[in-house]
Formats: sequence, C-alpha cells, structure tokens
Amino acid sequence: MTNSPTPVSLRVKPGPNRLAVTGIGNAMLDIITQDYDEVYKQLGLVKAAMALIQEHQLESFYNAMGPTIEMSGGSVANSIAGVAALGGTCGYIGKVADDDFGHRFTHDLRSMGVELDLAIASDGEGATGRCHVFITDDAQRTMATYLGASNQLRVSDINEELIARSEITYVEGYLFDLPPAKEAIRKVVNFAHEHDSMVALSLSDMFCVERHRRDFLDLVTQDVDVLLANETEIRALFNVSSLDAAFGALDELGILAVVTRGPRGADVATVSGVVSVPAHEVEHVVDQNGAGDMFASGFLYGLALGADPVEAAALGSLCAGEIITHLGARPESDLEEMAIEAGLL
Amino acid sequence: MTNSPTPVSLRVKPGPNRLAVTGIGNAMLDIITQDYDEVYKQLGLVKAAMALIQEHQLESFYNAMGPTIEMSGGSVANSIAGVAALGGTCGYIGKVADDDFGHRFTHDLRSMGVELDLAIASDGEGATGRCHVFITDDAQRTMATYLGASNQLRVSDINEELIARSEITYVEGYLFDLPPAKEAIRKVVNFAHEHDSMVALSLSDMFCVERHRRDFLDLVTQDVDVLLANETEIRALFNVSSLDAAFGALDELGILAVVTRGPRGADVATVSGVVSVPAHEVEHVVDQNGAGDMFASGFLYGLALGADPVEAAALGSLCAGEIITHLGARPESDLEEMAIEAGLL
Repeated sequence: MTNSPTPVSLRVKPGPNRLAVTGIGNAMLDIITQDYDEVYKQLGLVKAAMALIQEHQLESFYNAMGPTIEMSGGSVANSIAGVAALGGTCGYIGKVADDDFGHRFTHDLRSMGVELDLAIASDGEGATGRCHVFITDDAQRTMATYLGASNQLRVSDINEELIARSEITYVEGYLFDLPPAKEAIRKVVNFAHEHDSMVALSLSDMFCVERHRRDFLDLVTQDVDVLLANETEIRALFNVSSLDAAFGALDELGILAVVTRGPRGADVATVSGVVSVPAHEVEHVVDQNGAGDMFASGFLYGLALGADPVEAAALGSLCAGEIITHLGARPESDLEEMAIEAGLL
Repeated sequence: MTNSPTPVSLRVKPGPNRLAVTGIGNAMLDIITQDYDEVYKQLGLVKAAMALIQEHQLESFYNAMGPTIEMSGGSVANSIAGVAALGGTCGYIGKVADDDFGHRFTHDLRSMGVELDLAIASDGEGATGRCHVFITDDAQRTMATYLGASNQLRVSDINEELIARSEITYVEGYLFDLPPAKEAIRKVVNFAHEHDSMVALSLSDMFCVERHRRDFLDLVTQDVDVLLANETEIRALFNVSSLDAAFGALDELGILAVVTRGPRGADVATVSGVVSVPAHEVEHVVDQNGAGDMFASGFLYGLALGADPVEAAALGSLCAGEIITHLGARPESDLEEMAIEAGLL
C-alpha cells in the first residue's frame, strides 16, 4: 500500500437506479498462454500489439499455443468488471453469439451484478469473439483477436436505457473497427449527451488509432469528456513523437485525459496542467495484460463518485497494480476491500 | 529459493523412447472461482473436500458461481503436466468426450509434449468431466466434480504401450469411483509389473478413501511401490487418528510413502525412518489447489531420474511452491528453469 497519495473519501454513490459507468465494447473471451517459446513470432505477431485474425485462422492459432487458460476479456468489459469489483453499479453493451464463449462471457459479468444489454448474433454473424493472448517472460502481452460476433454490433443493437442511467458512458476505441463504426458511436454519444452522461473514450491500441486517426480525432475534439490512453496511443492520435507534444495538443483541446505509463504511473492532464500519479508498487509483475483496463476501472469509478482526477487516478493505479500480479485481465481480488484498506474508498 | 536442501544432481534421464512417468486418472477441466461470498456452503459442499455431482446439477452449480476461469485439471493429469514442465517425458491415459472441454484437455497436455492415450466416450457416456473449484479467502479449495466421460474408462480402454515404456506408472485414487474400478486398476498394475514400471498411487481425497478403504488397502499392501497422500488421506486409509499411527502402519508395510503437510512440508517414510522436508517458502499463498498434484510431479520425476526419496521430495516442494502462488492447478512457470536455478535438476 505504498505510493498511494493522501487518503481521500470518494463516498458519493450514484443515486438509486443510477449506474456509475456503462461500457460499450467488443465482447470476447481471452485464451491465454505463457509463451516461453515465443510462438507469437512464428505467427507473425508484433510484440505487445493487437492483430486481427479471421475465423479460418482460429484453429491454427490455437494449435500453435501451449497450455491455455480461458477467461472473459474484452478491454472495456474488463474495465466494467473492475468497476463491479470495486463495488460500483455498472452496465455493459456488446454483442455475442449464442455459443459457449458467449454464455461464459455473459455469466461472468452477470455474476458480478453488471446490467447487460447484449445483442445476440444471427446466423452468419460469426462466433463469439476471442483473443489469443501470448504472455512472454517479460510480462508483456501480444494479442491475436478474432472479432466475430462482437464486430457485428449494429446501430440498431444500441439502446438508450443503460446509457441514460449512467454517470459515465465508456466507449472502446476498438469499436472503430466495426463496419458501421461511426454511426454506432454517434448513436452512443448522442444518447450520452441527451442524458448528461460523461463520454469517456479508450484509445485501445496504437494500430487501431493509426487505422482510424481522423475519426478518433473528430470524436475526441467534439464529443469526448475523458480520454484514456497509453503513451504510444496518445502519440499516435496526434501523430507526434513525444509525450510532451501530445500533452500540448491535449492542452489545446482542453479535455480531461489520463495517459498510463506502466511502471512510471499515470499522467493526468487537466485544464490546470499535468499531474503524475505513481504506479502502485507490486512485488512481481506476471502479466501486464489488463493494466490499462483496470486503471480505467478505478479512474472512471472515482470520477463517477465525484473524486477529482488525481484522486481517481490513484484508485486506477491500485486496480492496475492488482491485475499485473496474475495471469488474465479480470480482477482476482476484492478490489473494493483493497481500496478501502488503502483509504481510497 | 530458500529452504532447499543441499543441491543434488538428478541428471539420469530415461533412455530413448522411455517415459519418466505415465499417469492414469480422471480427465477433466477446472472451472475456478474466487468464492468471496462462500457460495460453496449454499451448495452443500464440505470445505476443502471433493464432492461428486451429476449432470443435471451442472447448470445450477455453474450459475451459482461468480466469474470463472477455465483450465485443464484432473489430479494426476496436473501432475503429468508438472512433469512435462520439469522437462520430463511423460504419458497420460484417460477418457474424454468429443466436445469442447475434451478438445481443450487434449490440447493442453499435447502442447506440452505429453504422449496421450485418450479413449473417446461413446454417445450416452456423458460429457467431458469438469470440476467446479471454489477458492476461499484462506486459499483453500472446495470442489464439486462431474466425472462424466472420465468415469467411463473401461478395462478395454487401457493399453499397455505407454505403461510399458515408463519408469513409473502413477494411478489416481479417484479411479476407485469408476464402476469397473478394480478390474481397470488391476490391468494397469499388471502391465506395470510386467514391464518393471514402479506403481505409484495417490490417495486423492479422504472421502474417496473412506468410500473404498478395503480396496485401497489391498492395492497398497500388494501392488504399490510409492504411496502419495496428505495427512487426512493417510489417516483415513489406516483408520487412525494420528499421523504417527499412520507412519507406524506404513512402516509395517515397508513401502515408500510421502505425506504432504501443506506449510509444514512433507514427511518421507522410507525403510530407514521418516524424514521431513520443508515446504518451499512463498510470499503469498493464493490457492492451495494443485499443491499435492505438483508435489507429486517433482517427487515422481525425481524418483524416475534415480534421486533418493528425500532429494525427490525437495523437487516436489519446489513445484508445490510454484502452484500455490496463483489460481489453478497447472503450472504457470517454467518449472525446469526454476529447478535448475535451485540446484535440484
């Protein structure tokens, strides 16, 4: 519990029937292996990044993997699971198929009390999405994602109800890979604006940002209240080579942003300048997968409770510190208890 | 790497085409949850023990669980995975169904180089076995097992080939719950004896021992070369209330036995007396599930390489120490590298 700032009280719970955060993202399961033999290289993957693969590649990718563990994943879905583990009320919007992976994804969020608005894929829209995660000795994760049904989220699948009740609506940048991406995101943002729900956006992945830079920039400039990114993603967004230049661009936009920096903590960019929040110290980093997602859990839940951004970032650091001590991107500990013990809740 | 005895050299690898250990057991997947709310009590389970459930109970048990992770399990299968992670050659005999769980179980052992002789269940023999594992705050595991196809291992499913090539044949005590248990185990033991393969037996579970005490005793008395058990199991076998009384009974039998005692390490009973080997020190115990299975990995692999029992027990302690630091009963670390670093391989 070192490195946490002065304890703060974040006890302004959302009112009855309100949700702290609703997330919209790609619903998927993670298939995780400890990749001692660096099989990811043979599969042509770029270390620490996310590559998209097609259905016909699933078998060969799985067969190439060592022993696996399977658990629910999906970047924003992980963040929502983290909010639930912090004791927050939350919702999730996405799309799965009526198959085993879809049932498990649904079970795992529902069993944490998350309110779900999951569209079910029709025949021909593919199987439930899955992400093959290769963890190397240095605790980095390299990912090969089959989007499947998650990628078939239609504009008509997006409903108002959960967003209308949420303090924050959290949008996954990966959604820009959806065929009707702009329309779907537009609908989400409009619902959020109508109901005074803050719009938070995760940049998700530097390659995703590069694929859709113009659309990301438009959204960030016009509609986003809170931006979450890591260093490579934020530089990709503004097409700049330094973090300072990215902060300069953020300053011009005047939005709240947080840039996660792994062991160097997180930098919170507010209208009054950039504040660094240290990483939560852990004894042994096993798997960095999910660190950004869990940081988002604490950060967004803190904001939803009315904490200032630096206090919220401390809660984010605590959550990120938990997830990197074990395999997988869903929390294994009672985050609420940890946060209370650390004086952050 | 504290608490390890004087480094020993165990470098007598089995010859070409030979296997260090072949295991025979119930093939199954584990469905694991962190059970903060002690749901296991509502399900009528006895803490830290294994209960058998039927197919019609699967849905209600799963629905009662919090978020889960899924990975291959099965007590002796876990031990075999541990031998493979130590760099040992090994085999596995069991039965699965032609379903997703069966495919994953097969993939996980095969990807580690384990030679498989898996019978495939016919229609009506049930789905692949699975074990619902509830991990409580005290790192204890409580289990509800659906045996399914694993329980349909027929005498005719057991072949000679892997056993004939093995230094050690490792039999899971849970096999006594098979309908044709005695005949199947008899066939295994006969194959082992014919080919000078040592017969090792795990007592598996105290309730399993109580269900089949007479059969266990007959097997131990007549056919077993190496017996593996924890404290409650060994007391149940001899129907005695103290560990000392159990060691007295073992002394009369004159077989090699090892009794694992959690944080108190393991007691090795040899013809020349009982020797205690300390537990491998770890910083934080997450989940004791698999500790006995992984102890068996190191212990049996050590014996197969010609180590003396106390040296082999030190290798067992190292492996048990790895598994209790994370969720799940399959190793996440390169055990061979750990053992070499500790001077045990």
